[in-house]
Amino acid sequence: MKNLTLAQFSLLALMALPTQAKAQSSSQSEEAFIHSLYAEALGVQQGYQWLDDLSTSVGPRLSGSPGDSMAVLWAVETLDSLGFDRVFTQAVDVRHWQRGEETADYQSASRSKVLHVTALGGSVPTPGGNGGEGITAEVIEIVGRDDLHAKGHLLKGKIAFFNEPMDPGLIRTGSAYGRAGWQRWGGASMAAKYGAVAVVVRSLTHRQDDFPHTGAMAYEEKVAKIPAAGISTNDANWLSSELKTAKNGHFHLVLGCKEKKRKTSYNVIAEWTGSSHSDEVVVVGGHLDSWDLGRGTQDDGAGVVHAMHALWLLKQSGYQPHRTHRIVLFANEEFGLDGARAYANEGLEAGRKHVIALESDGGSGAPRGFSVHDMPGAIEAIKPFNKQLARYGCRDWAIGGSGADVGQIDDDGVLLIGYRGDSQRYFDYHHTAQDNMDSVHPRELEMGSASIAALLYLLDKNLVSR
Amino acid sequence: MKNLTLAQFSLLALMALPTQAKAQSSSQSEEAFIHSLYAEALGVQQGYQWLDDLSTSVGPRLSGSPGDSMAVLWAVETLDSLGFDRVFTQAVDVRHWQRGEETADYQSASRSKVLHVTALGGSVPTPGGNGGEGITAEVIEIVGRDDLHAKGHLLKGKIAFFNEPMDPGLIRTGSAYGRAGWQRWGGASMAAKYGAVAVVVRSLTHRQDDFPHTGAMAYEEKVAKIPAAGISTNDANWLSSELKTAKNGHFHLVLGCKEKKRKTSYNVIAEWTGSSHSDEVVVVGGHLDSWDLGRGTQDDGAGVVHAMHALWLLKQSGYQPHRTHRIVLFANEEFGLDGARAYANEGLEAGRKHVIALESDGGSGAPRGFSVHDMPGAIEAIKPFNKQLARYGCRDWAIGGSGADVGQIDDDGVLLIGYRGDSQRYFDYHHTAQDNMDSVHPRELEMGSASIAALLYLLDKNLVSR
Repeated sequence: MKNLTLAQFSLLALMALPTQAKAQSSSQSEEAFIHSLYAEALGVQQGYQWLDDLSTSVGPRLSGSPGDSMAVLWAVETLDSLGFDRVFTQAVDVRHWQRGEETADYQSASRSKVLHVTALGGSVPTPGGNGGEGITAEVIEIVGRDDLHAKGHLLKGKIAFFNEPMDPGLIRTGSAYGRAGWQRWGGASMAAKYGAVAVVVRSLTHRQDDFPHTGAMAYEEKVAKIPAAGISTNDANWLSSELKTAKNGHFHLVLGCKEKKRKTSYNVIAEWTGSSHSDEVVVVGGHLDSWDLGRGTQDDGAGVVHAMHALWLLKQSGYQPHRTHRIVLFANEEFGLDGARAYANEGLEAGRKHVIALESDGGSGAPRGFSVHDMPGAIEAIKPFNKQLARYGCRDWAIGGSGADVGQIDDDGVLLIGYRGDSQRYFDYHHTAQDNMDSVHPRELEMGSASIAALLYLLDKNLVSR
Repeated sequence: MKNLTLAQFSLLALMALPTQAKAQSSSQSEEAFIHSLYAEALGVQQGYQWLDDLSTSVGPRLSGSPGDSMAVLWAVETLDSLGFDRVFTQAVDVRHWQRGEETADYQSASRSKVLHVTALGGSVPTPGGNGGEGITAEVIEIVGRDDLHAKGHLLKGKIAFFNEPMDPGLIRTGSAYGRAGWQRWGGASMAAKYGAVAVVVRSLTHRQDDFPHTGAMAYEEKVAKIPAAGISTNDANWLSSELKTAKNGHFHLVLGCKEKKRKTSYNVIAEWTGSSHSDEVVVVGGHLDSWDLGRGTQDDGAGVVHAMHALWLLKQSGYQPHRTHRIVLFANEEFGLDGARAYANEGLEAGRKHVIALESDGGSGAPRGFSVHDMPGAIEAIKPFNKQLARYGCRDWAIGGSGADVGQIDDDGVLLIGYRGDSQRYFDYHHTAQDNMDSVHPRELEMGSASIAALLYLLDKNLVSR
C-alpha cells in the first residue's frame, strides 16, 4: 500500500455505517433504487431511441468530417434538452483523413477475383490516388511476427499480406484483437523496412464474411510510407489458399485516400453539480467520433448513449449526487485521442479534481461487469458493489483497461473504470460497413446504461470523501 | 440434511484429494483440459455446422409431422457417424396437430386493418375451418387476471383479447415469460367460462414487431373449446389503442387448424459406456421437435446441438468417462412432453440408474451459468465448479429449473441441471417464423457446448461414486 496517495486512500475506505440494522435497511433501499433504474431503462428504452437517432440522422462521423460536426451539434442539442446545470464544448484540433476510391483484385495464370478491400485509416494513397494506376505486385503471405522476419528478404518490391487470424480460443474477443492488432497498426512500416511496396491486412474479426475492417495505422518516422489496406476474412482465406498453387499471380490495389488539413472538432460536456463535494468530479464518457464505413453505432455510439443515459437515469430518479458528475463525449478517439488529451490537459477548472472516470467503448453487449486500472486498492474499492449488480449480469469485476479516452486522465488517485458488455459480437461490426442499428439489441443496450448508472450511484453514495 | 438419500449424499461429497500439491496440479490439468474444449469448439465450430444442417435441411419439425420424422432420421444418421457405443431410438406415441389457414382483421366505423395472427398450438378451428366463414365479434381487452374477472360479464358472445405484456423490468426474460404465460396457456378456457367465442393473445415477447408467436395452449375439461390465436406485439398495441375510441368495431378471425390422428415419433439416444461405473447414467439432452412457423433453430435446435457437441467434444479429446453418458434427444416436448415421459418410464435397463441429467432448452445465447433443481445439497454439489468455468462467462450458479424433459426423470437423488445462456434475445425468436439460423451467433453457440462439456467432465471426474 506504500504507493497510496491520500486521495487514493479516500476512495478505498467505504463509509462505515453506524449499525447493522441501518446497513441492512440502506442495502435494501439501494436494491430497490437500483431496480428502478433498470425498470425505467428497459421500459422506456430512451437510450435505444437516442442511438437510433445518432446512427441514422448523423451516421458516420470520422474526425474532421462534416459528420463529425453534425455529431457535435446533435450532442449539444440532445444534452441541452436534459436540463443538466451546464452544457459546453471544448475545441480540439483534430486530424482529418479522407477515404477515396478503393479497389483490389488478384489475377493469376488460372484465376481472377475482385476482393473486398478498404484503406486502413491514415494510409497514404497508391500512385496517382483516385483514378491512378495503383500498385500491381506479387504477394507474399506473412503469418505472425516470426514469419515476417523469416520472409523479410522476399518482400522487396512485393505486397506483404499479413494474415494472422485472431485467436478463436480467447474468450474475451478484445484480447484476441489486441494480440493480432500489430499487423494493422504497425505492419506497413515493418514491411516497408524490407522494401515492400504495400500491405494488405486480414480484417480483425472472428467472423468469416465479406466485410473489410478499417482502423487506425501509423507510420514509423524515417521509414518509407507505403499504402495499407484491409481485406475481408473470406478474401484473406481465399487468397491464402490461392497463393499455395497460383502461378504468375499479381495483386492490384488502388487507394485514393488522402490526408487533409487539420480541423477543429469539439469535446461535448454536460455537467451536473454535486450537492456537497462539487470540487470532486466524476466523468462518464464515450467518444463521439467514429469510422466512416458504417454508422458508428457500436463504436462508439453505444458508449455515447451509455454515458448520456446513465446520468439521465439518475437525474430523472430524483437522485442528488454528492459529487459533480460530467458526461464527456470525446472528440477523435479513433485517430489519435486528440479529444481525450485536450480534456485531460485543460478540462477542469482550478481547485477541482477528477476522482472517478468511467468509459464505455466496447459496444452494446449485455452487461458482464466492470474493470478497473491496476492501481493499489482500486479493485477492492469497486468490488463490494458486485453483490448489488450481480443479479443484472454484472458478475465480472476485474483489473483491466478502462477506455482509451478516460485513460488519459491522470489526476492523483483517480479511479479509472471500464464498462464490460458481452464481447462476442463486437468485432463482427467494429470498423465496418455493418456498424449500424441492426447490430443493437435494445434490452442489452439499456441494461448497460442502467448498470453504469447503478455503479455511479453506489460509488457516489458509499465512497467517503476527503 | 435430513431428506438426503444415500444417492443424493454421494453426489454432494467431492472426492477428497490426498495432498494440497496434488489438488493444485489436478486443478491445473483440469484448467488446461477445459480450455482445450473451448478452443476446439470455437476453432472448428462443429456445433454451428450441425445446427445449420438441422435448421436448413430438416427445418420445422412439429411432433407427428413429416419434418419430425426427418429430424429423427437426421439425428440417427448424425449420431451414428460419431462412433459412440450405440445409437438407438425409443418409439413414442405423440400428438399431431396441424396448422391451417389463419387470418385476422379488425374493422370499425373509421378503420380497417389486417393483423398478423397465428393459431396457438392445440386450438380448435373457427367454424368451417379452412375456407370457412370464421368468427366475427366485438373485442374486449383484458389486461391481467383481475381484469378478466372484472370484465367477465362483458365477454358473452365476444372475443377476449388478452393483452398483458411481459414485464420489461425482469432481467431474466424467462421469468417474464413465465408470469405472462397463463394468457396463452389457459386463457381460452378462462374466457369460455364467461361465454367468449374466441381469444386472441398478445405474443409473449419483449420485442415490438410484426411476428405473431405460437405455443401450446390447453382446454380445461367440460368447458367449451373456443379458437385461440396469437397476434404480434405491434398489432396488440394498435388494437389496444384503437379499442379506446373505435365505434362499432368487429374482429374477424379464421383458423383452419385441426387435430389429426396420433402418430409414432422417437426419442433418439446415443450411449457412451462408462469405464468404471457403467450402471450410473448421465443424460445430456434437448428436444428434437419444434414449432412449425420457423426452423426450430433456437427452440430447441440449439439444445440438441449442445447435447450432441458436448459429448462429442469429450470423446474427441480422448477422455474416458467413469459413468455411462447419454445424449437424449426427446420427442414432442412442445405438445405434452410425450418423449420425456416415455424416457423417464422406460429409458433405462434394470440395474442402471440416472445420477445426473442436464438439459439445454433456452437457445444459443452466450454462457451465463447453470441452474439446479431445488433439492438438498444440489447447489453445493455443482457450485464448486464455478471457479473453473467463471472465466468462460459461467458465473451464475443458482437454484432453478433444469428443463421440461429431464425434469421428468425422478430417479432417487438424480441431479437435475439446466444450462443457462444469456436470455435477452431468446423470446425475440421463440415460437415464431424468425426462429432460424440468422438468430445464432456461432461463438455463443459453441461456448455453450464447451461449457456443458466442461461441467460434465468436472462432475464425472470429481464426484464420488457409491
